[in-house]
Amino acid sequence: MSAVQADEATTFKPSTLNQAGREYPQVNSEGRVKARLVAPEAKGVLLDIGGVRYPMTKGEDGAWVGESDPQDEGFHYYQLVVDGAQVPDPGTLFFYGAGRWGSGVEVPAKDEEFYAMKNVPHGTLHEHQYYSPSNDAMRRCFVYTPPGYENDTDTRYPVLYLQHGGGEDETGWSRQGHVNLIMDNLIAEGKARPFIIVMDNGSWAMPGGAGRPPRGERRPGQWPPAGWADGFKRTLLDEIIPMIDASYRTKGDQPNRAMAGLSMGGMQTNAIAMENLDVFSHIGIFSGGTVGDPATAHDGAMADADAFNEKVKLVFQSSGSKERPEAVEANHEQLKAAGIHSVAYVSPDTAHEWQTWRRSFHQFAQHLFQDK
Amino acid sequence: MSAVQADEATTFKPSTLNQAGREYPQVNSEGRVKARLVAPEAKGVLLDIGGVRYPMTKGEDGAWVGESDPQDEGFHYYQLVVDGAQVPDPGTLFFYGAGRWGSGVEVPAKDEEFYAMKNVPHGTLHEHQYYSPSNDAMRRCFVYTPPGYENDTDTRYPVLYLQHGGGEDETGWSRQGHVNLIMDNLIAEGKARPFIIVMDNGSWAMPGGAGRPPRGERRPGQWPPAGWADGFKRTLLDEIIPMIDASYRTKGDQPNRAMAGLSMGGMQTNAIAMENLDVFSHIGIFSGGTVGDPATAHDGAMADADAFNEKVKLVFQSSGSKERPEAVEANHEQLKAAGIHSVAYVSPDTAHEWQTWRRSFHQFAQHLFQDK
Repeated sequence: MSAVQADEATTFKPSTLNQAGREYPQVNSEGRVKARLVAPEAKGVLLDIGGVRYPMTKGEDGAWVGESDPQDEGFHYYQLVVDGAQVPDPGTLFFYGAGRWGSGVEVPAKDEEFYAMKNVPHGTLHEHQYYSPSNDAMRRCFVYTPPGYENDTDTRYPVLYLQHGGGEDETGWSRQGHVNLIMDNLIAEGKARPFIIVMDNGSWAMPGGAGRPPRGERRPGQWPPAGWADGFKRTLLDEIIPMIDASYRTKGDQPNRAMAGLSMGGMQTNAIAMENLDVFSHIGIFSGGTVGDPATAHDGAMADADAFNEKVKLVFQSSGSKERPEAVEANHEQLKAAGIHSVAYVSPDTAHEWQTWRRSFHQFAQHLFQDK
Repeated sequence: MSAVQADEATTFKPSTLNQAGREYPQVNSEGRVKARLVAPEAKGVLLDIGGVRYPMTKGEDGAWVGESDPQDEGFHYYQLVVDGAQVPDPGTLFFYGAGRWGSGVEVPAKDEEFYAMKNVPHGTLHEHQYYSPSNDAMRRCFVYTPPGYENDTDTRYPVLYLQHGGGEDETGWSRQGHVNLIMDNLIAEGKARPFIIVMDNGSWAMPGGAGRPPRGERRPGQWPPAGWADGFKRTLLDEIIPMIDASYRTKGDQPNRAMAGLSMGGMQTNAIAMENLDVFSHIGIFSGGTVGDPATAHDGAMADADAFNEKVKLVFQSSGSKERPEAVEANHEQLKAAGIHSVAYVSPDTAHEWQTWRRSFHQFAQHLFQDK
C-alpha cells in the first residue's frame, strides 16, 4: 500500500459506541479494532470478537493493548478475557446479544449516513410495559412513533411488528439497529411513509420478575428454541396486536399491518405472518431463510398468485453477501416467475450481522405501505 | 442471633438487577452482597462497593466468590477488580453512575412495594431526541407520560422537571430510581395526580456525537463542575421547557410546572427554580442542601412569605438519615416559622444513595399540584 494508505491505516479513532470520554476501543480505516485495558497484575488479556481471540500485550503503564484482524463495516459484539475471566470492556456502552449485555464496537461504514443522528424531526421511542394474561407476566416492548405523532392527534398510522434475532431482545433494533434514526432520516427525505414500529420480545422464555427486562438468553445450538413459534405467535396475535391497536393511533386493518424480523425473527415472520395472511399484508425476512417454493410452501398459500397478491403486497427477503445469498436470490426468481410481489436485497460485504440488518430495514421500509 | 435468624441470614438470593438467568450477585437478609466470577488464572479478585473492597477467594472450579459487609436497603453501584483491572460484573444489568456504565445490585427493602412492577395501568417512557441550538448538538431526554396519555388526547398535564445527580445522567431516575413505577403505583392508588415527568441531562459537558448518550462523566471532587448551573439553566429555560410544551400535551403555566433533583440536581433546582419563581411553583431538593435562611437567602425572595406563597406552593427538602438530616430539619423549622409551605422528609437508615431518592420522590409526588 502507499505511504498515505499506510498512514491512514495506522490512524485509530475511538468507537462511536464508547462511553463518554473513553478513548478505547478504537477502530482504524481497515476495520481493525484496538482494545486497551489497565490490568497491571494480569498474566494475560485477550480481545474476543465473535469467538475469535486476539492476544493483547502489557505496556510499561500496566495497560494491555491489542488489535484484531479487519472487521466488516458496522456493529460487532465483543468481550475481553482477563486471566480467564470473560468480562465486558468497561470502555463501551452495552448491548444485548448472545444472551447477555456486553460490549459493542462500531466499524465506520461507507454508507453510515443513512443511520446517522441528524438535525431532522425525530420520532420517539416509547418503552411500553403491559400485562400478558397467557404468560401471567409483565412484558415490555419498544414502540417507535414517527415525528409529529404527539401533536397531530387526528392521524392514524400503519404498523410494522419488527423482531430481533436469537440471543437478542426487544432493545436490539433501536440500540444496535438504529431503526429509529433510519426511519427519521427516510421520512425527512420523503423516502418512507410514516408508520409505527413495535419491537417486542420474541424469545421463548417468559419475562423475568419485576423491573427486569424479558429474558432473551439461549444456549448455543438451541435456535430456534423448542416452542418459540407457538409461544410467541399466540402472544403476538392474541395480546400484543390488540394491545397496540388499543394504546396507539394505529390503522388496525390487514392492509396496514406488516411483520418483519432478522434471523430467528425472520423465521418467526415466516412461521407467523405467512400463516396469517388475513392479519399481515407486508412481510420481511432478513437473514432468516426464505418463504419457500411458491407452488408448495405454506400449504400452497402462494400457489394461486392472484389470490395471494390480493392479500400480500410485499414479500421482502434479504441476506448478507457473506451469508448464502444464493438461496434468497433463487427464491426471489421463483416468486417473480410466479407473479408474486417479491423484493430481494443482498447487503454487500457483510455477514450475519447488524450492518446487514440495518441495510435490509433501510431498503424494506421504502417499500412499506406504498400501495396506499 | 437465633438459629432461625442465622439460617435466614445465610440464605442468599439473586439480585433482581441480574441479567436474565444469572445467579450472581446474590444478597441475603442482612444486606450482604455475594459476588462470583469465573477467573481460573487470576491471582486476585476483589468486590468493590462504593470504594470499599472485599476480598474474594478462588474455589476448585476456578470461580472466585466473596461477600461484602451488610449494605443499606436499595440500589448500590459496584464493580469487580480482576488482577488490578476494574471491570463490570458480567452478571448484572448496567447503570450510569460515577461517570460510567457499571454494575448495580439491589438490596431488598422493607418498603420495596412502592416501586415494584405491578399489574396496574402503566405510563410510558419516551426517549426524546432534540436539537439544542445553544449547544449546537442533539440532546436526549426521557419523558414519562401517565397511563391513558396516548388515548385521552384532550387532557393536558402538569410537568415536573426531574434532575439526576453528579456523575449520573438522564437515564438514572427511570433505571435506578424506578420513577415510572412509583408514579404508576401512586396513580393506581389515587395518591398522586397524573403529571408528566421530564428527565434531561443536567451535566455540564455537552452531548457526544451521533448515537451517543449525553456525557455525564466527571472526575472526583469536581462537583459541581464549573459552569454547570448557567450552562444547564439556559438550556432548560430557553430550550427544554419550550420544546416539551410544544411536543407534549402540557399545562404550560407556572402553577403547573415543578422542578426537583437529587444531589447535584437538587443544587441545580436550588439555583434555577428558586431564582425563577415565575416559571416554577413546586420545588424539590433531595440530598442537595437547603434553600437557606428565609430572611436572606436568594436575595430575599422568601422574605415576604405572602408574596412568595403566591407563587410557590411547595418547598420540599429531604435527606437520608445517614447524611446530615439536621440541616434539612432546621431549615424546615425556619421556613415553617416564616409561614412558607415547607415539607421535610428524612429517609430512615439510608445515606446519599438511591433508596433515599426513591423514597423522597414517593413523598414529593404526593404533594405535587394538589392545590389545583
